[in-house]
Amino acid sequence: MKKITIGFDVYGTLVDPIEISVYLQSLIGNKAIPFAEIWRQKQLEYTFRRGLMNQYQNFDICIQQAMQFAAECLDVSFPSKEEENLLNLYSNLKVFPDVVPAFELLKQNNHTLVAFSNGVESTLNTLLSNAGLINYLADIISVDKLQTFKPNPKVYRYLALKTDADPADCWVISSNPFDVIGGKSAGLNAAWIQRDPSNIFDPWEYAPDITAKNLVEFSKLLNRSSHS
Amino acid sequence: MKKITIGFDVYGTLVDPIEISVYLQSLIGNKAIPFAEIWRQKQLEYTFRRGLMNQYQNFDICIQQAMQFAAECLDVSFPSKEEENLLNLYSNLKVFPDVVPAFELLKQNNHTLVAFSNGVESTLNTLLSNAGLINYLADIISVDKLQTFKPNPKVYRYLALKTDADPADCWVISSNPFDVIGGKSAGLNAAWIQRDPSNIFDPWEYAPDITAKNLVEFSKLLNRSSHS
Repeated sequence: MKKITIGFDVYGTLVDPIEISVYLQSLIGNKAIPFAEIWRQKQLEYTFRRGLMNQYQNFDICIQQAMQFAAECLDVSFPSKEEENLLNLYSNLKVFPDVVPAFELLKQNNHTLVAFSNGVESTLNTLLSNAGLINYLADIISVDKLQTFKPNPKVYRYLALKTDADPADCWVISSNPFDVIGGKSAGLNAAWIQRDPSNIFDPWEYAPDITAKNLVEFSKLLNRSSHS
Repeated sequence: MKKITIGFDVYGTLVDPIEISVYLQSLIGNKAIPFAEIWRQKQLEYTFRRGLMNQYQNFDICIQQAMQFAAECLDVSFPSKEEENLLNLYSNLKVFPDVVPAFELLKQNNHTLVAFSNGVESTLNTLLSNAGLINYLADIISVDKLQTFKPNPKVYRYLALKTDADPADCWVISSNPFDVIGGKSAGLNAAWIQRDPSNIFDPWEYAPDITAKNLVEFSKLLNRSSHS
């Protein structure tokens, strides 16, 4: 079986940023879920805009500024100690239950697994260690080195370059449609993990090579397509 | 008084894209407002992402694809004739009531007023004619010429270049914080029109030179700052 390089998006794909709402519940009650959603949505918007503006600030800063935005938007305020706690939660996000079984399956086929994320490398290191995933990963590849963000085509080419893989043997695995489209548009393979059946893929000129409801299903579909 | 060049953002600043929800109400009832909001938010996200990806498709296409996304998201479908009607509404958006009085005030001071938008020039021409604004404007400056979108710094420099103005004498006027930040970051002046007091300015490293609740207030504040 041909060995391939698989770059896993982290936030939303391996670990769940919306799960922060459980902690937020105790602080702000029924504003917890909207807060977590605005926080996440704004983080991404900030990366797109900073990438397009060539005004890079790292993902930790985008997370922090998006948190401030969400707080102002929902008219809540936290003492600065609590803000720090909330930001620290981003290093302790809950891993989705399908991740470890999928990593085991993929390792059996000797594929190279790497984390590939907008996050800052040291933050990712802490997060992936806490999540118990670090030993499965051959590398942590952060866009921070390039001072831009997904879906800049540069970052997908960097994934192939850094893992010494031909783009045609390189996969981007993400629950975020923008990331799947970014990978495809840069000439890599890409799988969309549609964790929630109500998630929608953007009606653009790109489609995922594989759509799966979780990473175990993806691993099986990949195996099948590699053998065919 | 020093003459300046004023580039007005169009969607959300001169005309109201959310007002489309009035028409949508008759089609989809209480899904109308969420539809209009998702539609607008996705349009912008699509421009940011396409700009960052260097995969330009014009704003008419972004509007159309964002409409498809909103429909799928809210599980509604329209006959294709109705889709066409909805897209045509984007050429007939309602002008905010403060626009004409503000243009009259600014014209008295011989400032150069131009439209400066993500929109396609021919679409903007129809929209601004229908809105009764075309005769106030010295030019319609569309990012389409550059095949990228706001807030790419190129488009703000193009506004200055195209109007033959020094960036220091050039203003970007927008209700969209990303556009104000884009203008400031490219070295122009910028005013934020905070049409709704609940709108929030991103907590980044840029602030507007003027914040006003509408364009008439902006015109008066500009006049005052020019005389001081």
